[in-house]
Amino acid sequence: MSEDPGNGSSPGLLLTDLYQLTMLQGYRYARMHEMAVFEFFVRNLPTGRGYLVAAGLDQVLSFLESARFTASELDWLRSREQFTPAFVDSLSAFRFTGDVRAMPEGSVFFPHEPILQVIAPISEAQLVETRVINLLQFQVLIAGKAARCKAAAPNSLLVDFGLRRAHGSEAGLLAARAAYIGGFDGTSTVLAGQCFGIPVYGTMAHSFVEAHDDESSAFENFVRAQPVNTVLLIDTYDTERAARRLPGLMAGLREEGYSLSAVRLDSGDLAAHATKVRRILDAGGLDAVRIFASGGLDEYRILKLVRSGAPIDGFGVGSRLDTSADAPYLDCAYKLVEYAGVARRKLSETKSTWPGRKQVYRTRGDNGIVTADCIARAEEHLDGEPLLDLVMRGGRRVERTETIEAARARLRMQIEQLPEAGRQLDALPAVPVRVSDGLRSLAAETDRCIEERLALSEGPAR
Amino acid sequence: MSEDPGNGSSPGLLLTDLYQLTMLQGYRYARMHEMAVFEFFVRNLPTGRGYLVAAGLDQVLSFLESARFTASELDWLRSREQFTPAFVDSLSAFRFTGDVRAMPEGSVFFPHEPILQVIAPISEAQLVETRVINLLQFQVLIAGKAARCKAAAPNSLLVDFGLRRAHGSEAGLLAARAAYIGGFDGTSTVLAGQCFGIPVYGTMAHSFVEAHDDESSAFENFVRAQPVNTVLLIDTYDTERAARRLPGLMAGLREEGYSLSAVRLDSGDLAAHATKVRRILDAGGLDAVRIFASGGLDEYRILKLVRSGAPIDGFGVGSRLDTSADAPYLDCAYKLVEYAGVARRKLSETKSTWPGRKQVYRTRGDNGIVTADCIARAEEHLDGEPLLDLVMRGGRRVERTETIEAARARLRMQIEQLPEAGRQLDALPAVPVRVSDGLRSLAAETDRCIEERLALSEGPAR
Repeated sequence: MSEDPGNGSSPGLLLTDLYQLTMLQGYRYARMHEMAVFEFFVRNLPTGRGYLVAAGLDQVLSFLESARFTASELDWLRSREQFTPAFVDSLSAFRFTGDVRAMPEGSVFFPHEPILQVIAPISEAQLVETRVINLLQFQVLIAGKAARCKAAAPNSLLVDFGLRRAHGSEAGLLAARAAYIGGFDGTSTVLAGQCFGIPVYGTMAHSFVEAHDDESSAFENFVRAQPVNTVLLIDTYDTERAARRLPGLMAGLREEGYSLSAVRLDSGDLAAHATKVRRILDAGGLDAVRIFASGGLDEYRILKLVRSGAPIDGFGVGSRLDTSADAPYLDCAYKLVEYAGVARRKLSETKSTWPGRKQVYRTRGDNGIVTADCIARAEEHLDGEPLLDLVMRGGRRVERTETIEAARARLRMQIEQLPEAGRQLDALPAVPVRVSDGLRSLAAETDRCIEERLALSEGPAR
Repeated sequence: MSEDPGNGSSPGLLLTDLYQLTMLQGYRYARMHEMAVFEFFVRNLPTGRGYLVAAGLDQVLSFLESARFTASELDWLRSREQFTPAFVDSLSAFRFTGDVRAMPEGSVFFPHEPILQVIAPISEAQLVETRVINLLQFQVLIAGKAARCKAAAPNSLLVDFGLRRAHGSEAGLLAARAAYIGGFDGTSTVLAGQCFGIPVYGTMAHSFVEAHDDESSAFENFVRAQPVNTVLLIDTYDTERAARRLPGLMAGLREEGYSLSAVRLDSGDLAAHATKVRRILDAGGLDAVRIFASGGLDEYRILKLVRSGAPIDGFGVGSRLDTSADAPYLDCAYKLVEYAGVARRKLSETKSTWPGRKQVYRTRGDNGIVTADCIARAEEHLDGEPLLDLVMRGGRRVERTETIEAARARLRMQIEQLPEAGRQLDALPAVPVRVSDGLRSLAAETDRCIEERLALSEGPAR
């Protein structure tokens, strides 16, 4: 498993919170082995975001299929006084054998809508919680952020440049994947090309120019060594002076069959430099050379550059994309909603959740535009398209995973089906989300049961 | 290598930016194989932070020691028209053979001070850039964030709860490590216990309570199944009502030899609940039971709780720690500062860097408090303690890696040696950082050379 860098499953099951293991020991002690239903959902939209994007399901399913404790993990657990030998032995046989329903990747969704529903014996459904959230939250964040960049510059080339500032290896790799689902054209992360077939883009760094004794030699060597899709970085010393040397340089190289695809600007006033550089290139017969910009970009800065009319053909987006810098985490949860056939919920202040296993129905107007979502009990049958599909049965995927291209196309289509106002960068929730009467009744009934049992077990008031 | 989940080196060398490979092909074409010096530094302090914390060096050195292209990576590169077969063949022999100087982990440092200096043939020093930044930036962020939480609650138990909202598996694992260096007492991430020997803490989740038909049974089963360091989560339904049932419950269980370490509060007004719960527990003879709080915490919220006098003994800090939510990335760089014995720098607007290989000297007053740092040329010998040590020679560590405990102790001591004002949560830079006259002269000389060569290679003005 660890040989496949793309499936996100290489760490064993100790990549979890300790309380999952102590609870498992508790369920075992209490002989609680009934089926549980857990659902993953997001409580709130990050400020300004009008919708969320489902992403990361493929990694979750790979994780569930391959979830095991390694021998060294079991040895380590045996060395701790916290766990009984019999309990640790029982973990060696751990497999995920449950069913999963989910919204496919690239789906648009909204707060409180489950995008993943896990149905399994409670120990299995419980133990996988930490990694399921860890995998889903991150890609949901990045796919949504990428979709916003795409909305800001629908006609520009968008490339993920964020690996170096991503939070570790897996974040860098999966950010490239999620950004592609979100509408990016590619990534600079080579491994994402190998793992996911995502187009890989690259230019050059300032160090290449600086290591040469003069910039023109650096440019010439790079063009000669790199005859395909050559991009020169021209802001190492003086952007316009570098641009002015290109027509002369390329005149000679073109005769030898070399060409230049683009120049990259990475500092200063990008709009002003792009305008000047465009003029210089056009005057020098290099009107086919594109201008690519990078450096501290996000959806707002891109929108400003696009609206300024700056002649920039593409953007490299790094740190702020790969860390989802404006919203680096989501208020999301993976919550028990049913155990042993009985609906469950938490009542805590500001953190209560809807009980019971659910389905989400989406209705559209005659023009295809989404008019509302309704969160309902799974047993209800309402109008509209049900959004959660069975994707895993008995611990195995029900069908071959769809391609990343399919997820990307789904998102493009679903965003087009949102009301215009919900697609803006400073959006309100794009679509009203209703809760069915059936679900409201179930919640009231669940609360009555909880209240009754609390009163029953109450000791004398102090 | 991929068997060791802790060294961060399991991905091969394709976990990099494409431009590293195109530049390597360029260096090879240009027969540029001289020694280069690159340095990693941070340009600015995130708002409110008075200092930065060096962390991640161990993972960087493991990466450098084991950096290889895998066979499947080389095959993939051969399949792309961008690279010549001879170039890809040359990559199969890639090894990092250079020297590294660095500040040890747990060092306090400031903007523009290099904390890592890589000296190697240019292709080697260039290729490792992306992953070096990826590994260092993240742990620097988290260790600094953790140190701030520790400053807010120096006498409380602090536990990292962030794995689920960390950005992927490696981020979760390394956040636990960096938080421990930063002063945390432990983590909920079990794998961090196995990999790094960090103390692992765990409580229980709401689901355990909800899966039971009543809360008292859940508590009793958990205490019986989990006789060591038992912590009960008491906010699933009604915090105070749950607390009121504990004295009666524990009276029976204590006779059987069971005990309760703490209760956890995870929602609502934590200070108000803690005060009420403390009173209930004390009145019920449970004054030895500690109160642990979690839920949306960061250094500011912790400080507010501590200042309120709320009887909270420990804090679980999750999302905002593991994502460094107020500053999810650093303005950091790994820059070429010397090639073939000649100092190099970039001149771009707002992004210029200091040229040449450097040393940082730290001076202290008679009371041991740091008075200033000075960034100097490596050849200069200034007063004060030099902060960069040789840690790798010829691609091998010069000595056995120090323990994570040593790094943690270093940080604790170095923070004590900072002026009081620089340790506050809303701090200005804690210490003045000077640039030596020698380094200023080198920068001026470097610029003169660059300017001369630019003028020489200039075509006729348009």
